Amino acid sequence: MSTTVGVHGSVGELFPPAVLRDALDPSGEGDDPAYKRALSDVRVVETADELAGCDALVTFAYDDSFLTSDLSWIHSIQAGVDRFPFEELERRGISLTNSTGIHGDAVGETVAGYMLEFARRLHRHRDREPRREWRYPDWDEAFTLSGESVCVVGLGTLGRGIAARADALGADVVGVRRTPTPVEHVRTVHTPDGIHDAVADARFVAVATPLTDRTRGLVGADELAAMREDAYLLNVSRGGVVDDAALLDALRDGGLAGAALDVFETEPLPEGSPFWDMENVIVTSHAAAANRDYYRRVAALVRENVRRLAAGEPLANRVL
Amino acid sequence: MSTTVGVHGSVGELFPPAVLRDALDPSGEGDDPAYKRALSDVRVVETADELAGCDALVTFAYDDSFLTSDLSWIHSIQAGVDRFPFEELERRGISLTNSTGIHGDAVGETVAGYMLEFARRLHRHRDREPRREWRYPDWDEAFTLSGESVCVVGLGTLGRGIAARADALGADVVGVRRTPTPVEHVRTVHTPDGIHDAVADARFVAVATPLTDRTRGLVGADELAAMREDAYLLNVSRGGVVDDAALLDALRDGGLAGAALDVFETEPLPEGSPFWDMENVIVTSHAAAANRDYYRRVAALVRENVRRLAAGEPLANRVL
Repeated sequence: MSTTVGVHGSVGELFPPAVLRDALDPSGEGDDPAYKRALSDVRVVETADELAGCDALVTFAYDDSFLTSDLSWIHSIQAGVDRFPFEELERRGISLTNSTGIHGDAVGETVAGYMLEFARRLHRHRDREPRREWRYPDWDEAFTLSGESVCVVGLGTLGRGIAARADALGADVVGVRRTPTPVEHVRTVHTPDGIHDAVADARFVAVATPLTDRTRGLVGADELAAMREDAYLLNVSRGGVVDDAALLDALRDGGLAGAALDVFETEPLPEGSPFWDMENVIVTSHAAAANRDYYRRVAALVRENVRRLAAGEPLANRVL
Repeated sequence: MSTTVGVHGSVGELFPPAVLRDALDPSGEGDDPAYKRALSDVRVVETADELAGCDALVTFAYDDSFLTSDLSWIHSIQAGVDRFPFEELERRGISLTNSTGIHGDAVGETVAGYMLEFARRLHRHRDREPRREWRYPDWDEAFTLSGESVCVVGLGTLGRGIAARADALGADVVGVRRTPTPVEHVRTVHTPDGIHDAVADARFVAVATPLTDRTRGLVGADELAAMREDAYLLNVSRGGVVDDAALLDALRDGGLAGAALDVFETEPLPEGSPFWDMENVIVTSHAAAANRDYYRRVAALVRENVRRLAAGEPLANRVL
């Protein structure tokens, strides 16, 4: 079989639809002949009418028009697929795949950046630039990651990306995961019932539980209370998102040294949120995975699945 | 022989004199018996009078009173010793040692932090916090270090600390050094006559020439002009300090993507400097080496040399 792939206009939330269309176009000299045969066409889909004739759709958003189309396969350019109606899709025999597994490098580097900002005080230097203020840090303020302890909660693609970089920078890395099998770059893998002790020892606690995890809120008020007063919380996970109120309390009463937060209970973070104003809180805008190569990695997943579909092989990253 | 060590009050510029005095006190249970025998006394010296009876002095500043004292050895807590009068010290037979070699971790992490700030746009997220502005980066703005090229100019302690971390984060690392012998974590070591090509290929050029290097200004206007338009300059070196005017021009006319600057021709950086206002320039305050463990590392150097002095061995880190 041969597949016509639509690139939904909604991918524009993360990159221009045309760059993904071009990356899917099988005109490259090095292109796999099997892929060239498997792809009939690739086009950008801006309206429901343009869906006609598409066998597959690569999309950011979900729209009900997908259900009444000819689509047999939808690919989400995000890892999270909460917004898709699983039952309706299954009833209509539409497969759903996601983009899990492509963000380990980007998120790992963002979290390494958070740790270095806090240790080397780069966020505070940045704060002083508009005030044209030249100031050496207090003598006991700056430190090095080398020799510090890092606890990574969740050891999926993101958590492993974080652990690899923390280890590479000389930190001592432990992790928390449902299945305590060994993970590269992680000295000890704890199960969730050991999370209290795991976070209590760490200078940095990075929360990166996969979105599909049943452990939502794994790092809650009790875990925050168990953390060291000189510890930093780093959250890049919607799955493990902490209790904002409990986190605020911990930051205000000195129970924590600081936090870097990419994901929040309410997004965008409301203008009135006290997090914006706290000098020891780094706020990024759900952008830990942002990467100009994002579309290339999505294209690689889609190309592989177009090939598999033609070869009658099971789809990779299949959710439904 | 047995040594009385003074800790000069001027070390207070970088850490409290008392913490260094305590770190030199040979009361720890694990202390080397040879060190305990070699040290007569350790005291904080606040005035010239208190210098009397000191055989050695650990200091930040230089003062002429050192020349007319009983000192036979001065230890600088910095690597740079420009401010000491070499001829006068030699004439009086006063040895001078410095603190070269202790800043590789701290400076390496600071420069890794600069690179991650630029790649992951963390400096721009920080800028938006006071405006309470939630914004995802432009689609082609954020990138990853993994696979990018880094050129480290100067491969002393600082340069090697930078190279190790760039390599650990997945970058392709080349270096420039007078002697082109292989260096761990560096794929190719160029000599200074190859600097043009070395910087022209790099996404990040980190300048870390040792202070004692004869290559002051090694990265000048010509080298800035050779750099890629999407490249970032990272300067942590007084030795290789670039031409501020040429750098400003390159940043203003789009010849460079940005710069992170820790060291300047004039310090503190004047309030009127245009660097303060440039969103693509990160200014730190000659603080790349800042580290709460600084005093411990200085203490380790001094303890070793107290032991060597008693044993009649040559001093480590000897300048004179």
